[in-house]
Amino acid sequence: MGDEKVMVGREEKNLKLKDKNNDLSSFFKPESVAIIGSLSQSWFGGLVILNNLLDWGYSGGIYLINPSYDEVHGVKVYPNIKGLPEIIDLAIIMAAARQVPSIVKDCTEKGVKAIIIVSDGFAERGENGAKLQREVVETARRTGIRILGPNTVGTVNTTTGLVTSPYPIGSKIKRGNIAFAAQTGLISPTGLNYGDFGYKISKICDFGNKCDVDEIDLIEYLADDPETKVIAMEIEGIRDGRRFLDVARRVTKKKPILIFKPGRTKESARALMSHTGSLAGDKKIYESAFKQAGIIQVNSLRELLEITKAFSYQPIPKGNRLGIITITGAGGAMATDVAIESGLVLAKLSVETNEKLYEIHPSLVGNPSDVGQIAGMGIPPYREVIEAMLNDVNVDCLLCTLQGMIPAEYYLQTLNEIKKPENKPITFWVFGPGSDGIDQIYFELENNGYPAYLDIESAVRALGAMCQYTKIQRRVKDGRRTQ
Amino acid sequence: MGDEKVMVGREEKNLKLKDKNNDLSSFFKPESVAIIGSLSQSWFGGLVILNNLLDWGYSGGIYLINPSYDEVHGVKVYPNIKGLPEIIDLAIIMAAARQVPSIVKDCTEKGVKAIIIVSDGFAERGENGAKLQREVVETARRTGIRILGPNTVGTVNTTTGLVTSPYPIGSKIKRGNIAFAAQTGLISPTGLNYGDFGYKISKICDFGNKCDVDEIDLIEYLADDPETKVIAMEIEGIRDGRRFLDVARRVTKKKPILIFKPGRTKESARALMSHTGSLAGDKKIYESAFKQAGIIQVNSLRELLEITKAFSYQPIPKGNRLGIITITGAGGAMATDVAIESGLVLAKLSVETNEKLYEIHPSLVGNPSDVGQIAGMGIPPYREVIEAMLNDVNVDCLLCTLQGMIPAEYYLQTLNEIKKPENKPITFWVFGPGSDGIDQIYFELENNGYPAYLDIESAVRALGAMCQYTKIQRRVKDGRRTQ
Repeated sequence: MGDEKVMVGREEKNLKLKDKNNDLSSFFKPESVAIIGSLSQSWFGGLVILNNLLDWGYSGGIYLINPSYDEVHGVKVYPNIKGLPEIIDLAIIMAAARQVPSIVKDCTEKGVKAIIIVSDGFAERGENGAKLQREVVETARRTGIRILGPNTVGTVNTTTGLVTSPYPIGSKIKRGNIAFAAQTGLISPTGLNYGDFGYKISKICDFGNKCDVDEIDLIEYLADDPETKVIAMEIEGIRDGRRFLDVARRVTKKKPILIFKPGRTKESARALMSHTGSLAGDKKIYESAFKQAGIIQVNSLRELLEITKAFSYQPIPKGNRLGIITITGAGGAMATDVAIESGLVLAKLSVETNEKLYEIHPSLVGNPSDVGQIAGMGIPPYREVIEAMLNDVNVDCLLCTLQGMIPAEYYLQTLNEIKKPENKPITFWVFGPGSDGIDQIYFELENNGYPAYLDIESAVRALGAMCQYTKIQRRVKDGRRTQ
Repeated sequence: MGDEKVMVGREEKNLKLKDKNNDLSSFFKPESVAIIGSLSQSWFGGLVILNNLLDWGYSGGIYLINPSYDEVHGVKVYPNIKGLPEIIDLAIIMAAARQVPSIVKDCTEKGVKAIIIVSDGFAERGENGAKLQREVVETARRTGIRILGPNTVGTVNTTTGLVTSPYPIGSKIKRGNIAFAAQTGLISPTGLNYGDFGYKISKICDFGNKCDVDEIDLIEYLADDPETKVIAMEIEGIRDGRRFLDVARRVTKKKPILIFKPGRTKESARALMSHTGSLAGDKKIYESAFKQAGIIQVNSLRELLEITKAFSYQPIPKGNRLGIITITGAGGAMATDVAIESGLVLAKLSVETNEKLYEIHPSLVGNPSDVGQIAGMGIPPYREVIEAMLNDVNVDCLLCTLQGMIPAEYYLQTLNEIKKPENKPITFWVFGPGSDGIDQIYFELENNGYPAYLDIESAVRALGAMCQYTKIQRRVKDGRRTQ
């Protein structure tokens, strides 16, 4: 069964008759969109896509296609895409799987540039579905049209208000510089509470069954996307290892790529097989490939979200020497454990810095510096301690612990006043007895470009990942020098 | 320096002149409390303790002791504990470290049963402090009085309203069956938002420098505490390995003990040394000791909180065969990865169960069962799927994924209606696009005894830990049988 699928993959490659259109911009910046298929009243379908697009302020043309309707809610419905008065950049197909191959053909005849097949019932559902998927791929290969999916919730572009998810979306995602891609609808705005994470997104892409557009195509596209600073991906399998390595190696020189890959165990690899009809592959092969390509591998979806945001907000450090500001001895030890395990070292503070800390209070001397020992005297001298640590030549990055009982405004004002050197990222662990206070500090920080965390491990791991990227970039430079 | 401290430990043992009072109940159920020392207006100190006790409804006698005051806020202040009109069960000392030895002596003369030394400035602050700590220990050994601390925020008992933290506490912690202990004030109600976690507590204890009362004493006490079902601990070092093993082995037969131990790296072990003046020790020795003692070791404070609550709410399973209800293929694979890594196996559903699932919808067949594939048709048939999985003889425990867009009431009603077999724990991963919906589902579940998680890994690891405890208990039984 597994080998058979791989064969399908090879077969697909041999079908390549026309050069692919390598510009994916029609998936993210279409001037017009056609929604083809399901228009029934449901919490899922074409009408939901229409509503989402209108809600998010997408300003391009939107057309509805379904032969069974003349209009819905006063909006004209066309029987076929070929009858549309306008050239269509992007078609979103929500029809039954068996109808999809002929709809795709119609799209190619109309000159559509990109197709998102939302429908499921393809390779993930056995041989009949796989056959339909092959038909679609044949058309794509023959005509050069690009296809995302099937079995996908499609794309999001926060700049243009494009959102193709067929599920309702509660809130608009904040515009930012993180591109998020995955082989699952989990990363759609219906799946994750990006807005509440303080997460700021440039683009989202769900590959679905990735019959055509895959993670490599997207990495290539995002490499040149000025709105994207960091690329975060969940991928379950890579079809073309050699091309992946080539492309990723080139892109990681200029933008960090973080990847979470489920399917580490043979049991889960089997589960993924039935999910997108693709092979998950061997854990060690992937780990080694990611390492070679300069990709930062993380261990969970949550880690992917949490580590990526540090790259989004903060500068890349020059080295791996960590300063820790803690409120408890245990917190300092917990941070140190994760730091060492993440490839960081504890910074040895300079004599000057320790003198500065001593002057504030003798118990502050050293790294970790424990402001909790003087907490009984009032609000700890965060400003002075952060400034002293951050401006030490021996400190490359800083973890700062914040107590949730102190008002958010105090922290924000303090942080804004501090003279922050370039290239020194800082992350924050916020803890305390009440969620309200913690939440407020969390959001104020995030909204002002400071990555906040509710557990100390993530706050440290984020800095570890940034230092890993420093090494990746250095390796690239050293490599060039020796060439 | 390290060796010297160990010597101090040995020396202390030789000082044991009078049998210790092994009953720690005066630390948790004192009929009267004396607060000795600092009464200044501050966000930290004796007046804060007084307010906390009154806020939480502690109904025993409360006395203030400080020679510089006659009264504060209309409350009489006594110059010395010896002058009090009543026998005192528990003294809470907040005085300067150098005054503490003589205050402790006064307490012994008054017949106080237990002392919490909140003050810092002892072994954690070098040789002068260590000397003061030794004086205190000598008195304790000579008289049999028990001492918690120094450098501690003390204890909490949610049943009696006892709370000795010198920091303000926002909200009352819910009463429950989890005992939480640590060598750090982080676990005090000022440090963690227990209430917001849905966390229900019986007792909290911070050992501080543990000059006398230590984790072993507490485990012995909690073993017989009818209000405690599960014991969660952060410990940084163990003083008496042999006794620890003896006691823990005995207690884990009847109650699960979960431990998080920071200080895994030599760098963090050094940090801990300066924090409580105790040695953190070798990672592998501890791991092996915990395993021998039947203790469940976890890797972070967050994991300690999240895994413990499953033990608090749910029954211990009979085996390690996991059923998974997912909404996405990727979620199923992510859960499977963590399950296998946590010692679980994927349950092979019985023919009957698969037939039941097939009748609901063919795409539901198998484990993981993916209700997401029919999400387009409306709210997934959670009731039927959970009931079918949970009542399968091949399923020992269940992970269920909940979509945050579905109203909390729907889930709660569904769960309450389901016929749940005994001994089959269930955990929930709640995800979705908006925090409000997620939070509501989370709290409704937790308030009704269903452990909810915001990441799938924790939801699975909790079940893995419960199955680990099943094995620990089985080992004990098998051991008996062969003896």
